[in-house]
Amino acid sequence: MNHPPDWRLYLVTDRSLIGSRNLVDVVREAVQGGVTIVQLREKSCSTREFLDLARRLLALLKPLHIPLLINDRVDIALAIGADGAHLGPSDMPYPDARRLLGPNALIGLSVQTPAQVAETQPWDVDYLGVSPIFPTPTKTDTGTPWGLDGLRSLAHHNRHPLVAIGGIHPHNAAAVIHAGAHGIAVVSAICAAPNPRTAATTLRHTIDSALST
Amino acid sequence: MNHPPDWRLYLVTDRSLIGSRNLVDVVREAVQGGVTIVQLREKSCSTREFLDLARRLLALLKPLHIPLLINDRVDIALAIGADGAHLGPSDMPYPDARRLLGPNALIGLSVQTPAQVAETQPWDVDYLGVSPIFPTPTKTDTGTPWGLDGLRSLAHHNRHPLVAIGGIHPHNAAAVIHAGAHGIAVVSAICAAPNPRTAATTLRHTIDSALST
Repeated sequence: MNHPPDWRLYLVTDRSLIGSRNLVDVVREAVQGGVTIVQLREKSCSTREFLDLARRLLALLKPLHIPLLINDRVDIALAIGADGAHLGPSDMPYPDARRLLGPNALIGLSVQTPAQVAETQPWDVDYLGVSPIFPTPTKTDTGTPWGLDGLRSLAHHNRHPLVAIGGIHPHNAAAVIHAGAHGIAVVSAICAAPNPRTAATTLRHTIDSALST
Repeated sequence: MNHPPDWRLYLVTDRSLIGSRNLVDVVREAVQGGVTIVQLREKSCSTREFLDLARRLLALLKPLHIPLLINDRVDIALAIGADGAHLGPSDMPYPDARRLLGPNALIGLSVQTPAQVAETQPWDVDYLGVSPIFPTPTKTDTGTPWGLDGLRSLAHHNRHPLVAIGGIHPHNAAAVIHAGAHGIAVVSAICAAPNPRTAATTLRHTIDSALST
């Protein structure tokens, strides 16, 4: 990747939300609707299944120049040649992951507390996933929501691009961008939508409008 | 590792069997009793916890020149600099793992069927974990036991060292060695033993006697 990634509309996958649909189809529709970057998140399948799914997503996304990041599993990212990885506080520590993935990989970290943000400041991480902005039913292991004020403060006191996640939908996305997020990450707003393409289009328009005002 | 590994008594860890004991303590006792190689197998903890545990085991084993292999997780093996990995049919395919771990890593594969054995023959795998030899309560996802006849046949028709696993204890270990195994892998026979050191000593003596007759 020779140019900085486009963080505007960041899709985090969740197969538990897509019903009987195929994940690759859902992601394809979401990208057609305006998703700019995709994170494959799998928490209960085997390594083999994760790898197969990651390869199929990479085959879809690479020709479209949409980066694919792998949640947690650095080995999956390395094996398929993904663009990078997203790591939470229970995943591999950042310095280990950077050493294994190399200087050109995109690596993002979930930050749920100011202490976690402070820890990231000396590191050359590519973005911070600020989580959660609002209360959310998707993840149950999250901390106190940052809220718009917390996000605004963070935007002034950290040096990394911020991708906001947690409880964001078309009605509050503009406020999140105005509070300083470089992009918005969604799970259920796209994965659980009856029409992922339309859902992505609506979010993307909202984000683009907010970024231009 | 400049010399071929000593496969004789291969410990596969299982924290669910060690009660309130510390895994590093159990492994230390097992190695004092005669374990020659250790596989860290974790199926439900976070990457961070797996990594921390793997680092502590490597710190114990490296000075003793006992190889440490990581079950399934190539990223953990790479991050800590383990001696290699053990892969089952649901884990990363062997060619991917070899590419990531490099030519000097020890990589073993579980084989549960003759078809899986046939697939391994062109590959430079370091050993095959022949599983299960006998019925075993430790793993519930295993296939039909190979039995001593199956193991004997396998020893004549494959080119890799064989480590036998599944239902092996001091009373049948000699027969397993005589059937052609280069080593014996155990889980519960050591992890669930009241005294892992004594359990390992007994198994090791049995194996060494069988190898010399």
